[in-house]
Order: sequence, then C-alpha cells, then structure tokens
Amino acid sequence: MDERVREHAAVLVDWSARVEAGDDVVVSVAEDAHDLGVAVAEALGERGANVTTLYGSEEVSRAYLKGSEERADGGGDGEGDGDDGGDAPVFDSDPAVDRAIFEAADAYLRLGGGRNTTATADVDRRTRRAYAKARKGVREARMDTDWVSTVHPTRSLAQQAGMAHEEYKDFVYDAVLRDWEALADEMARMKDVLDEGHEVRIVTERENAPDTDVTMSIAGRTAVNSAASVAYDSHNLPSGEVFTAPYDTAGEAFFDVPMTIDATRVRNVHLVFEDGAVVDFAAAAGEDALASVLDTDAGARRLGELGIGMNRGIDRFTDSILFDEKMGDTIHLAVGRAYDACLPDGESGNDSAVHVDMISDVSENSRMEVDGEVVQRNGRFRWEDGFEG
Amino acid sequence: MDERVREHAAVLVDWSARVEAGDDVVVSVAEDAHDLGVAVAEALGERGANVTTLYGSEEVSRAYLKGSEERADGGGDGEGDGDDGGDAPVFDSDPAVDRAIFEAADAYLRLGGGRNTTATADVDRRTRRAYAKARKGVREARMDTDWVSTVHPTRSLAQQAGMAHEEYKDFVYDAVLRDWEALADEMARMKDVLDEGHEVRIVTERENAPDTDVTMSIAGRTAVNSAASVAYDSHNLPSGEVFTAPYDTAGEAFFDVPMTIDATRVRNVHLVFEDGAVVDFAAAAGEDALASVLDTDAGARRLGELGIGMNRGIDRFTDSILFDEKMGDTIHLAVGRAYDACLPDGESGNDSAVHVDMISDVSENSRMEVDGEVVQRNGRFRWEDGFEG
Repeated sequence: MDERVREHAAVLVDWSARVEAGDDVVVSVAEDAHDLGVAVAEALGERGANVTTLYGSEEVSRAYLKGSEERADGGGDGEGDGDDGGDAPVFDSDPAVDRAIFEAADAYLRLGGGRNTTATADVDRRTRRAYAKARKGVREARMDTDWVSTVHPTRSLAQQAGMAHEEYKDFVYDAVLRDWEALADEMARMKDVLDEGHEVRIVTERENAPDTDVTMSIAGRTAVNSAASVAYDSHNLPSGEVFTAPYDTAGEAFFDVPMTIDATRVRNVHLVFEDGAVVDFAAAAGEDALASVLDTDAGARRLGELGIGMNRGIDRFTDSILFDEKMGDTIHLAVGRAYDACLPDGESGNDSAVHVDMISDVSENSRMEVDGEVVQRNGRFRWEDGFEG
Repeated sequence: MDERVREHAAVLVDWSARVEAGDDVVVSVAEDAHDLGVAVAEALGERGANVTTLYGSEEVSRAYLKGSEERADGGGDGEGDGDDGGDAPVFDSDPAVDRAIFEAADAYLRLGGGRNTTATADVDRRTRRAYAKARKGVREARMDTDWVSTVHPTRSLAQQAGMAHEEYKDFVYDAVLRDWEALADEMARMKDVLDEGHEVRIVTERENAPDTDVTMSIAGRTAVNSAASVAYDSHNLPSGEVFTAPYDTAGEAFFDVPMTIDATRVRNVHLVFEDGAVVDFAAAAGEDALASVLDTDAGARRLGELGIGMNRGIDRFTDSILFDEKMGDTIHLAVGRAYDACLPDGESGNDSAVHVDMISDVSENSRMEVDGEVVQRNGRFRWEDGFEG
C-alpha cells in the first residue's frame, strides 16, 4: 500500500476527527475507497475506537432509488418509464436504523471515491429531491457527530479531474498531507476580519459574462476557520477555507467555475438576489438541475454560506467541491442550509434540505470589501505582499 | 447484469427474509458482492423497505484487528510481533453503534463474497477469540432479526471450490434458484421423525480412518425444516437441511469433509464425547485451530446442532459451510451455540460464542437410527426407493 494512504488515514483520524479510545466511529467506504478504508480501520484499531463500516456505494443508492421509482409507478408492469411522469416515490422520513446509527455514533468518516461520478445520473430529480427531504432528520443526526468527509484518489475522480491516476494521487495527497496547524494560523486572520465585519461586498468584472456585484450581511455571524478538523468546526479533508453564514443578500453574482449537481454538469450560473432570496437565475448548462435545487424548499433560494478559498496547495479546479472551494483566489457562495457553527447560540440560520456551493475565480478584476474596506483584490489579501488596496 | 443475480435477490428478499413495505433492512455487502448488493437494493426499493448497507470487508476487519493487536503490544514501537506473545487486545463488549443497528433492524441480509477467503489468516487466534467473545451481545441482537446469509459467486469462492468462475456461478445458482416450497415439503418428513424421536445414533465404518459411533439425545427438542426462509426459522440461502439441538452426546465421531476454521484448513477431525462434552480430539491438519475453537468457552465442547443435509441440488463439496452442510447424503454436527428455534420455550440450550459445523459423508457404510429404527442407510431415507432397512 502507498504509504501516503496510511498518512491520509492518520491525518483523518487524529487531526481531523480527533478520535479517542472508546469512541464509536462510523466509516462510510465508497466502492473504490477500499484501501483508505483498510488504513482507517487499522488506525482506529490502534487508537482503541470501535468501528462500524458502511458501504457508501452510489450504484447501490441508484438501484434503491430506481426500485422505489418502479414502486411509485405502480410496479408490476416492469416498465419504469424513467421520465418525469407519475408520482415521485414516498420515502420513510424516520428510517430507524440510519437514525440509530448516527444517534449512537461519536464520529462519522465519509471516504468518498466511487467508480463513476455520474452513477446516479438517470435517477429522476424529483426522486432525489423526495429522498433528500425525507432524509433530513438522518442528515441532521449525522451532522451532530464529529463528521469528516474526505476522498480516496480513485480513477473515476482522476477522470473527472481530467488527470492521470498517478498525477491525481499527487494532487490529492499534496492537498491533504499539509501542515494543518500552520494553515490554521494563516486563516485565523481572515476569520477575524469576517467576525468583526457587518457587510461583505463582492465585485468582479468579466468580459463576455455578467459582472458580479453582490452584498450580504454577516453581522452577528461567526466565521469558521476551516482547518480540516472538528476542533475548528471544520468537516472536510482537505480544507483550507474561511466561511460564514450571510443573510439579506442583494445584487447579482456570476460563478465561472463549472460544477456537477446531481450528476448533471452545470456551467456559468448567474443568480439575482432581492431581499435575501434568489429571484432570477440562469445557467449556460444544467439549468434544470439548478432549478431543481432552488425549488427544493424555501431555504434553497437563500444563501447558507460565504466562503473564501485559501488553500494555495490546491492549484487547479477538478470539478470536485471538496477541492475546488478550498482553492486559493476563489470565493464561493452556497444556496441552502447554513452551518450551525456560524450562528449565535440558539439562533437558527437558513434551513434547507440542500447545500450547493458555487464558485468564482477572483484572481483577476475582482475585489472583496468588508464594511467598505478592500480586504482582497485580484486574489491578494491585504496582509500579503503585492496587495493594492 | 446476469439475470440470475436479480432472481437471487428476489428469492432472498421475498422467500427468505419475507421483507415487507416499511421494514428496516440492513444489508452487509462483501468486497466483491457488489452486483448482488445492487440487485438487493433495487428489490428493497421496489418493496418499499428502508435499506442500510454495511461494508462486510474481511480486509477491513483484518486491519482493525491488526491495529488492535498493535495497541495491545504497547503501540509506539511500530513492530507488531504477529506471534502469540503479548496480551490479546481488549475489545468493547457493548459497541454502541453496532448494537443500535441490530436492535433497530427488522431484517439483516449478509451478502458474502470477498476477494480472498483467507483474508484474516495472519490475525492472532487469541485476538479473534477475544473479538468474538466481546461481540456476543451484538451477535445475539443480530440473530434476533430476520437474518439471512447468502453468497455472491465471486472468483475467490470459485477458487476455494476449485472451480472456474462461470462453472461456480452455475453451481451457486443451481443451489439457490430452486423450488423452495417443494423442498420444504420433502424436508417436513425428516422433521417429523426428529420431533418424535428421543435418541439419535449415527454409525459409519471407514477404512483407514476411525469409525463413527455416536449417540445423542434429542428428546423435547424441535427440529427446524431449514427451507431457506425465516418463515421456517431457516437463515441460510441456499439451505436444504433439517437440524435440531442434541445433548448428552456420547461416543466418537469422525468428519471426513475438509473445512476452514478461522482461515485455517482443517481435515479429518475426530471427536470423543463423554457426558455430552468433547473429552479428546484430533485432526490431521489444523488441530491448533480446532483446539482454539474448543477452548473458546465451556459451551464450545458441547454440541449445538445435529443436521441432515437434504439438498441434492448441491452435488459436490466446495469448502463452504453454506453449501457443504446442505448437500444430500451428509450429516453434520456443530460444536457450540444451539439455535433457540430448536429449544422448548424458556429453555436455554448450549451457549457459546462459537458455532462450528463438521461434516461426514454418509453415502456409504453408514446408518442413522432414531430410537433404534434405521431412518437413513447409505444416504437413502426410509421413504425413498432403494432404502434397505
């Protein structure tokens, strides 16, 4: 086994999830994440934790959802029509086993890395939406654990990134095997700016695309120094972003980084906000998938997150939100659910069954202001060499 | 996908586990049982059941156990010694998540089929024994569900059986895709004999091997018509045996069918019983593994099962207990845990953390008597053509 797999497991278990002896740890292993699953299990045995392994197979999920569609179509006829006709399946909103798992778990480690990033592409969007809605309680129980999501560098992810497999392994391990303490210190400066600020404005001018000029309130919200550890309320490995939960968004935003929503490629999203909510939208590709997200529930049209990518170890977009949103010189906004960590105690932020991040490259013709002061221009932060205020 | 995979899933879900809408079903998918996992998930979606998939990887289990050994060895030195030196690891006897899973589950479907049937061969036996002991509560909770164990025909199992992959698929599906109702009717005759009987005697004469002449009481016990369905208290697919829970065993028994215990090949087991317990034993190969089983706890030296193989669709031994013990013209005895289904209400049978089956070919020079009457001679039952009483 590549020694970096074991190093990855050690960072995940010790730095990220802070697993201790006696912890009950649930590990979800995707189809091709077997080697990382083995390394994580070994590390958990060494730490004296209990381990339960789930099979995180997208192909199994697809089969279950397709079977459910068949049932909703009346079964028996053996002819799932596969289109949007008929009723969406009804799913149990309180599945006893999954609920019990996450209520009993101390930590949840999701090891992504399937065999096909578009494995669920032919599942009706309404089916997925119905399933996501029904699973809200399970998802919340899962997020109440010390959860961490990471990926094993599989061929399928390499392909999505347009890279050779060995090249992609280097990319992933460069992003994951970092000096996380040093990066956490660096990001603390941005967190201070956002914690003290009241209003953020992002302006980007582009040729052949709509400009971005969007403002949002962040007063009273707490930014998360996302240093890839539950000790920082940070749940992705790799990480390297600072994010908060904005509200009262107004203006227009354009996102030039492509993404995949529900197995559909989405490009050049343009959102128009009024009174905190999306009132108009467009996309050059995948507009239906975008519409489906925005129509999930009321919260799906409001922002749940403003994030500043600060991990300059990630040097290119790979169509994976785990990496893309952390890349230096990017800013992202997410529609949907806000993270509790950003909210004052007892206050509920934007609530939704979805959380979909959208990313802008801000390395050129761009600035971010906090309370009227420029904090970042063309990618440079004001405490960095080369910053022009 | 081979259509037989879907047929296998349908038999498992409908005939074996009797899954109904709203059931909470836990499916454990071994490393190479993916296709069957997909087919089962689709079937569960069609039936309107909830599904939770566990990753039943022996390699993950090995890694966890090896990591635990490392911890027991004092960790830090990075040198697991791999031998029997040092203390066995201590495992949590009440792991919260696994306990919660099986307490909440209605049914548990185990889809075997890893990549290497000897994947845990280098785990210290004492470690495995300590783990098995600690997991007794979880195992009991699991057996309180409508559990069914089956296998997907993988290359690794084909290799263990000494067969080509396609040949092995035919072997498995011939055994699984049967007319189970008809077989259940046939087996009901043997169940009647055992339910009404008080004492069983098995006699087999062999050249170049010890004879078998063993008696056991079955008075008051109830035989299970193991027709591969929880409706018959039968939990293996395929099945095709009638079994009960004997006691007060005396005499000697020789088992000529090879088997694998804890990844160790065991051949020609000879057991000597007095007052219901094994007082002497030998094996031509794997005697240490046998000894380890018998030393697990007090119940490991007493019989938990007498079983009569009646599935003549299985035409050869394949070193897999799931198939071997069901083969027509065989009888097996298991040391260890008895199944509750064989016991009168409120009475506890033989208790143990282990249950290990051992098989004899009874097609020649052999007879089984119940209360002095010959019921089976040289494989033929007394209700069959060719039976000589």
